[in-house]
Amino acid sequence: MTELSRRNVFVGAATAAAATALTPFAPARAAAPQAGKQAPSFYRYKVGSYELTVILDGVRPVKLDNSPIRNAKLEEVQAVLRASHLPTDKLGFYFHPTVINTGSKLVLIDTGNGPGSRQTGTGQLPDNLAAAGIDPKTIDVVIISHFHGDHISGLRTADGALAFPNAEIMVPAKEWAYWSDEGAASRAPQGQQATFQNTKRIFGPIADKVTKYEWGKELVPGITAQDTNGHTPGHTSHLVSSGSASVLIQADVTAGFAPLQFHNPDWLVGGDQDGAQAVATRRKLYDQLATDRLLVSGYHIPFPSLGYIEKAGTAYRFVPAPWNPAI
Amino acid sequence: MTELSRRNVFVGAATAAAATALTPFAPARAAAPQAGKQAPSFYRYKVGSYELTVILDGVRPVKLDNSPIRNAKLEEVQAVLRASHLPTDKLGFYFHPTVINTGSKLVLIDTGNGPGSRQTGTGQLPDNLAAAGIDPKTIDVVIISHFHGDHISGLRTADGALAFPNAEIMVPAKEWAYWSDEGAASRAPQGQQATFQNTKRIFGPIADKVTKYEWGKELVPGITAQDTNGHTPGHTSHLVSSGSASVLIQADVTAGFAPLQFHNPDWLVGGDQDGAQAVATRRKLYDQLATDRLLVSGYHIPFPSLGYIEKAGTAYRFVPAPWNPAI
Repeated sequence: MTELSRRNVFVGAATAAAATALTPFAPARAAAPQAGKQAPSFYRYKVGSYELTVILDGVRPVKLDNSPIRNAKLEEVQAVLRASHLPTDKLGFYFHPTVINTGSKLVLIDTGNGPGSRQTGTGQLPDNLAAAGIDPKTIDVVIISHFHGDHISGLRTADGALAFPNAEIMVPAKEWAYWSDEGAASRAPQGQQATFQNTKRIFGPIADKVTKYEWGKELVPGITAQDTNGHTPGHTSHLVSSGSASVLIQADVTAGFAPLQFHNPDWLVGGDQDGAQAVATRRKLYDQLATDRLLVSGYHIPFPSLGYIEKAGTAYRFVPAPWNPAI
Repeated sequence: MTELSRRNVFVGAATAAAATALTPFAPARAAAPQAGKQAPSFYRYKVGSYELTVILDGVRPVKLDNSPIRNAKLEEVQAVLRASHLPTDKLGFYFHPTVINTGSKLVLIDTGNGPGSRQTGTGQLPDNLAAAGIDPKTIDVVIISHFHGDHISGLRTADGALAFPNAEIMVPAKEWAYWSDEGAASRAPQGQQATFQNTKRIFGPIADKVTKYEWGKELVPGITAQDTNGHTPGHTSHLVSSGSASVLIQADVTAGFAPLQFHNPDWLVGGDQDGAQAVATRRKLYDQLATDRLLVSGYHIPFPSLGYIEKAGTAYRFVPAPWNPAI
């Protein structure tokens, strides 16, 4: 950046160098301390008569010592980040559970990274739920999209209790079948072992009480499970419809580093278990969302994670929906 | 939108029609009331060691019975809105004063629509300042960009008192010269009369106490006035620099309906007083911002109003900076 642009957009550098304060200032009357604190990170919107609240579980900073993309070099990733006005030495990894108040049911989709992750800047779902005025005891239903730790670990508190004690817990049947299969665990690569173990920790003691759901089913009136497998074998998105309005809560159709996978839908992150299927699902869904102009909310799309998908050549562009202060 | 996409993205319509709730539900344990309330609309970010807070003064809904663009038909405007996934029957008109805490001075740039506009959804600066933990009495300096009512009317409370009683008030000298000139008022078209009258109401009683500043001057350490005239004769933007970081607080370089003027920089709103000069300023500044990749904050760009300008053919695209929950 030139000195001209940094200091003085329309005034020549010589003038800028000569610029001095216009008036002498008295000492500050009351030097107010800097706040050092952001606004609470939740966002409300309506879909028909339903009230939805996106709750940020935090942003995990990921150092870019290596490429975060399995099938691209670090330099290629950094070029995209640079073009997107983002830092090239680290990525911010967002996590967004969603609360849906249907008027008669209070539903939570996914639960964040849980209490074990707070030192990395995440596990903030309880704090941001409180900021949004939502008591975990009033959640009637928790719907899980898939079993990666950043979606299920928030189901338990630090002492191992259920974080949403009055909620029915609903999980994709195909996801349950895979991650609770001892044979699959024994054949799975090292990278999946933590998810097998975490599944046992979270769901083991309540295995009989968890509701296993199939794709295509309406789980709660207006909330339908959509097959978007590939990222994991039972990866599920949720279509929320009320009246003539809808939003697709897409979970990890773009996983991990959403801006990168919009830019190049063929790029894969470590968590994309069946890479070819993950790409096929992403392209099929996004082509349809772009055509239908359907509102979409993404678990890993930067806060408040809400907007529209547009085609951009052979890739996609995410167009954020404008902030509504009144809902 | 097709029935397929609305109800069931990946499942056939026949299946969707047959879909039923997977499990019978007990009556909701505690039907939590919908909150009906958005998160407070302020946003903090750092520029070097300075802490900036964007404060939303509200969003005014503007019915689109007529074109909001002087030199375009309503149908052309609606086509752009439709392509941008926005409603075509109304526009949301955002207003964003900015607070800058330099560490020794607390500075406010522009003051919103004031108490007279609260029934139209604006005039919320005091509420959102309170939500951000900022006491109006601690503001040391108020810098005004130009004299349109949505920038100066918040200088006074409902009873006519100064809203920032301990602040020095700094205004562009050229803006002062024009709007306090009785001769100019007598020659000006009807559309400008309200601004002449409002200028007298707001500044008349404190005319001697207001500091008039010139373009190119550093008003507060790190805050420099930039000539961006055209929208009004003295319209001014402010470059805020600390260390190696900068942001341009652009005021109304895109006025009123920012998404429209990014899409077509030649389009003019009613408030663009010298249309040709407003367009020349917009194009010159945006070409430079796009080249220098300078962070920009726009008074009328949707909340939180912070991002980058990119060239898009002969027009521009606004790329929002990602939300940072930690500042």
